[in-house]
Amino acid sequence: MLTASLAWLICLWLAAPDARAEDGHELWLRYHALPQPWVERYRAVARELVMARSPADTAQAELARGLAGLLGAAPTISDRITQDGAILIGTPQSSASIATLNLGLEGLGSEGFVIRSLTISGHRATVIAANTSAGVIFGVFHFLRLLQTLQAVESLALVSVPQLRYRVLDHWDNLDGTVERGYAGASIWDWHKLPGYLAPRYLEYARACASIGINGTVVNNVNADPLILTPAYLEKLAALAGVLRPYGIKVYIAARFAAPIELGALKTADPLDPAVRTWWQHKVEEIYRWIPDFGGFLVKANSEGQPGPQDYGRSHADGANLFAEALAPHGGVVMWRAFVYSNDPREDRIKQAFNEFAPLDGRFRDNVLLQVKNGPLDFQPREPVHPLFGAMPRTPLMLEVEITKEYLGFATHLAYLGPLYEEALNFDTYAMGAGSTVRKVIDGSLQSHTQTGIAGVSNVGADRNWTGSDFDQANWYVFGRLAWDPSLSAREIAEQWVRMTFSNDAAFVGPVVAMMMGSREAVVDYMTPLGLAHLMASGHHYGPGAWQGGGTRADWTPPYFHRADADGIGFDRGTGGSNAVAQYAPPLAALFNDPERTPEKYLLWFHHLRWDRRMASGATLWDELVLHYTRGWQSVQQMRHTWAGLQRFVDAERYSQIAAFLAIQDKEARWWRDATLAYFQSISGLPFPPGTPPPQHTLDEYKTMSFPYAPGNPGWTAAPFADESH
Amino acid sequence: MLTASLAWLICLWLAAPDARAEDGHELWLRYHALPQPWVERYRAVARELVMARSPADTAQAELARGLAGLLGAAPTISDRITQDGAILIGTPQSSASIATLNLGLEGLGSEGFVIRSLTISGHRATVIAANTSAGVIFGVFHFLRLLQTLQAVESLALVSVPQLRYRVLDHWDNLDGTVERGYAGASIWDWHKLPGYLAPRYLEYARACASIGINGTVVNNVNADPLILTPAYLEKLAALAGVLRPYGIKVYIAARFAAPIELGALKTADPLDPAVRTWWQHKVEEIYRWIPDFGGFLVKANSEGQPGPQDYGRSHADGANLFAEALAPHGGVVMWRAFVYSNDPREDRIKQAFNEFAPLDGRFRDNVLLQVKNGPLDFQPREPVHPLFGAMPRTPLMLEVEITKEYLGFATHLAYLGPLYEEALNFDTYAMGAGSTVRKVIDGSLQSHTQTGIAGVSNVGADRNWTGSDFDQANWYVFGRLAWDPSLSAREIAEQWVRMTFSNDAAFVGPVVAMMMGSREAVVDYMTPLGLAHLMASGHHYGPGAWQGGGTRADWTPPYFHRADADGIGFDRGTGGSNAVAQYAPPLAALFNDPERTPEKYLLWFHHLRWDRRMASGATLWDELVLHYTRGWQSVQQMRHTWAGLQRFVDAERYSQIAAFLAIQDKEARWWRDATLAYFQSISGLPFPPGTPPPQHTLDEYKTMSFPYAPGNPGWTAAPFADESH
Repeated sequence: MLTASLAWLICLWLAAPDARAEDGHELWLRYHALPQPWVERYRAVARELVMARSPADTAQAELARGLAGLLGAAPTISDRITQDGAILIGTPQSSASIATLNLGLEGLGSEGFVIRSLTISGHRATVIAANTSAGVIFGVFHFLRLLQTLQAVESLALVSVPQLRYRVLDHWDNLDGTVERGYAGASIWDWHKLPGYLAPRYLEYARACASIGINGTVVNNVNADPLILTPAYLEKLAALAGVLRPYGIKVYIAARFAAPIELGALKTADPLDPAVRTWWQHKVEEIYRWIPDFGGFLVKANSEGQPGPQDYGRSHADGANLFAEALAPHGGVVMWRAFVYSNDPREDRIKQAFNEFAPLDGRFRDNVLLQVKNGPLDFQPREPVHPLFGAMPRTPLMLEVEITKEYLGFATHLAYLGPLYEEALNFDTYAMGAGSTVRKVIDGSLQSHTQTGIAGVSNVGADRNWTGSDFDQANWYVFGRLAWDPSLSAREIAEQWVRMTFSNDAAFVGPVVAMMMGSREAVVDYMTPLGLAHLMASGHHYGPGAWQGGGTRADWTPPYFHRADADGIGFDRGTGGSNAVAQYAPPLAALFNDPERTPEKYLLWFHHLRWDRRMASGATLWDELVLHYTRGWQSVQQMRHTWAGLQRFVDAERYSQIAAFLAIQDKEARWWRDATLAYFQSISGLPFPPGTPPPQHTLDEYKTMSFPYAPGNPGWTAAPFADESH
Repeated sequence: MLTASLAWLICLWLAAPDARAEDGHELWLRYHALPQPWVERYRAVARELVMARSPADTAQAELARGLAGLLGAAPTISDRITQDGAILIGTPQSSASIATLNLGLEGLGSEGFVIRSLTISGHRATVIAANTSAGVIFGVFHFLRLLQTLQAVESLALVSVPQLRYRVLDHWDNLDGTVERGYAGASIWDWHKLPGYLAPRYLEYARACASIGINGTVVNNVNADPLILTPAYLEKLAALAGVLRPYGIKVYIAARFAAPIELGALKTADPLDPAVRTWWQHKVEEIYRWIPDFGGFLVKANSEGQPGPQDYGRSHADGANLFAEALAPHGGVVMWRAFVYSNDPREDRIKQAFNEFAPLDGRFRDNVLLQVKNGPLDFQPREPVHPLFGAMPRTPLMLEVEITKEYLGFATHLAYLGPLYEEALNFDTYAMGAGSTVRKVIDGSLQSHTQTGIAGVSNVGADRNWTGSDFDQANWYVFGRLAWDPSLSAREIAEQWVRMTFSNDAAFVGPVVAMMMGSREAVVDYMTPLGLAHLMASGHHYGPGAWQGGGTRADWTPPYFHRADADGIGFDRGTGGSNAVAQYAPPLAALFNDPERTPEKYLLWFHHLRWDRRMASGATLWDELVLHYTRGWQSVQQMRHTWAGLQRFVDAERYSQIAAFLAIQDKEARWWRDATLAYFQSISGLPFPPGTPPPQHTLDEYKTMSFPYAPGNPGWTAAPFADESH
């Protein structure tokens, strides 16, 4: 009896506020004391922190904070090197010592850094140097990461330069505090209290972004509200920019094309109309008065109901150039989204963006980047890469990926997106022969561009753990790390993240990294295997809905994409079908046109095939489909099992939340499998292969389920607007 | 240089995650170590915690947790008293020792408790005992509060019994996660992840509520969505109830009157229709299968567009009795709201609830409580008390107050509501002669009721500090404390709260309590002095809008209420006007009918008076009005000054948030004053008295301001509905 009471007491005691709260809020910047042998070792290289001249140097403060946490005590502060184990940080401007050292800073640009172990004035020292304070911050976080992951730091000769220039988070946050496709609570931006109140989380957000090299944030939804452009909001945004600036992060605005009408009382938003051009020119000047280092605009135009240049018979290039012209004198850029498709039943939806944009190659101004989603549909668990990559040699293309898991199970499904990003980056477009990977397209090396970038649709919200689940933090992390260097490995990044976020214990790191690396494929298997796509429920996208046809637009419904019928399943995009294959470079077009050569992971994306077709495994397509769905669900069960065995490595709060989420994922993976297969079985009429469990419920039961309040679906902003005079 | 750098470092160092986070999340349950002399003293009475038989006793765990924090170490755990300084807690059922002591538990009911200093078996001991585990929990939190506020605990002989039976928080939380009139972020209920995931904050919420004696929570908005009544949501609610139950808290549902139509596919929701009665009976049985201790329903009917019995020609009593009949066999209650008014231009809006309900006295079933707002309008900064109090002797009346500051400045204005609640509770209705206070009406003593209660519209949200600001926590706190004992003093409760939340230092407690005690009057002064009301902007209620007329309903506009014209200002509710005074008991009716006798704080509520009327001060009404508005704003400036002098007592994060909010309040108090007076001046045509600053802007400038995304205004739920079969 007493023992049970005591157990309960201890349990509550551990949860007491005095104990260190492990609620995920610290992210990977979890500077808890390292194991003692490592503390000893690292203290020898971190005895003394040499302060530069700048009194409020953010990088120095971050380094001191990190070292104090990891090593249990802050290093001595000095104004010069007085002993072995000094750390000297700064720029040639902030530090006379750094200015005199030959560190090769010339080639590092404005964000690169070096970390060098040197002997200076007879003392062993570590130098973290860059040309700008932002570069120094990136270097400091890199150095701290070496300590967090227990790397040797005695003989460092690191040079790191970001491979992409614009590394941006796109927040689909509405001004009312909701987040479209957000699964981590409300927006982190408390617009109502800005500019008067700067919530501490703004600074924490800046630290987290800078620690992984993100250097820009688009603060509002691409389905944009023009009010963000009014003085009241610019004042708020300027206050926010003031918090982000010391961390090297610029703010951007998602601009609404019709703003000159809605705010400016013009009769038109025609991009070639002189009054419209003047309006934007003045608006941009006004923005730069508030925010001198404003980054620029992201624009979604003529897409899903948004206004755009085509409303006036103009092209997307005309539209983008309107903004580019206004921004150019100030150094700002336009990120123009290529995510467009019309309600045209004659043309395959996934072909339309290519049709629209490829002919415009060369017609964009220098400060326009075309922002293209990784796949031609819409952030599905798996898609082949968008055919625009490589196909617009005269236009800088940015890659847009989704970090928030709109189509991969929201916050509760464990799905590490590193492999998805890596798959996209390493996809060979053959645009200029073999080796023309997406990575080389977006880093500018393939087609000689200097404007380069990547955007990730943020998964950050006001939830205490930032991203709705602990494992979703890894997706923010891997996005940032790959944005800095797209050649990094998703597995290595996962390992770093696990070490920083949970534990360096190999008995924990190994199984967790393995679990993460397999997790996205599990989602593909239980949601959309073998090249299937867009099988989710309409609107909120929560759960399966493969049967949901009807409505005003066929191309918003699952049957449009899976095309299952009594004979078979899949979308014929070969030369005999929609001929989407022809949008790829010839070697790929030939590959994808041939069902025998098409990789099975893309098979039903490109081909409509008979249920009884033989697959590589020897099974029929139908059986293979059932086996994939079953395997996906079983993978989740395996993840639950793995996690249950790791309890001793993790604090109670994070352990139990993750365990609860895996249980939800288990239940929902089975739901996805059972409901989707019940539907396809109603079409194929075929039995489940032996040993595979039948669906738990009837198809009709699945069809009756409804979830009107599934999160992330606040509806596109209805764009109210107000007079500018307040 | 170095010094400034160091200062910055220290600043960041203090903010480091290792340092104890003072972000307000701990509320008043902030069990940090007490000053050392007090630790010594209290340890002598808390050497040994005697465990009762129940292995998972929540009260014992709370006590151990509290003592461990406050005294720096947990007491010894024992299964019997072995030394001086024992603490023995439990019920006669859980503890044989308590069963044998003569503690007078008989008269304590199910929630009362005793705390006694006794000598047992030769040892000095403190006994915390009650008839139920809930009572013990209330006692434990009371005991811990004595320690937190540095009270003597050596010779205790406390008996405490709640004076009201239902002490309920009403959450106006929508199922989509928004909160109507919520200013602390999204809803704390994560419906989407329930029942699979029980967020830690549910337990924390339960602890906070129990610590102040709250014993019920209505989880959803009174503008109710019927989906809460479907099995999918009942399963979620049952999971939530499981977290709250150990803390003595029951869950309630705001029920939608039309649910039998919307969910049950009936043709009618007529309360006298047998099929409707059967539907609710079955629904209630279903709810009790999920939640055996379900509390009951809160219903808003025929009010602001909600469906109700009048849709079928039935009375509010018919409607309430429909639910009461279904709930009675299970012990549940109906809290039926009296907040009704129709769009009837012939009748003063504030008279309508009385007109509607007073004649129904005696027609409600035994398990119905009529829930009446403190004033007859709608939670204004000041209103005279609702005339229904005392006027329905055969009906139990619950008091409904607003904790969330819909009309008192949202989250950023410091306004302690204790004095507002106290003013309402101590208001003498004269219903049964002098001394017929609202307190005696609602505690049942005046008119012999045993069903008694109070409801507070919650200010709790997902913000880290729960209520949007630190000082708003005090409003949650004072509501709970007054709900337990309405005779407590708002000032004493404020002092307790300050001590528990910030510091016991007298140099801090004194000025802060003074600031709090004056803060509500400051809001009255800068928003609605001298009995004015409803001068806020429409819809979101953010900021001033005294000029906003028009629209479909005059009684939703400020001019309806202030009635300012060239001659004067105020609403004539005397016998020559709307005669609202006649709804009060004769002595009050006579008082309020006479402008010479009406207290000036209610003056313009009851009378339309000339701008040049002489006030008690000798000033004209116009001058007095300007002076009140000015004084309100100046009070905020004084609060800023006071707070600035208290920085040394408060952690940096809370200090600076409060300072920022006070700066916002200063700005907005001036805006309220200037805009409202600019408007009234445009009507009165009179000059400002000497020495009072003119408005900063023109009236037209104030009129053009718009705030479409002011928080708390998600719109009443449009009540989608779904088939019950999922």
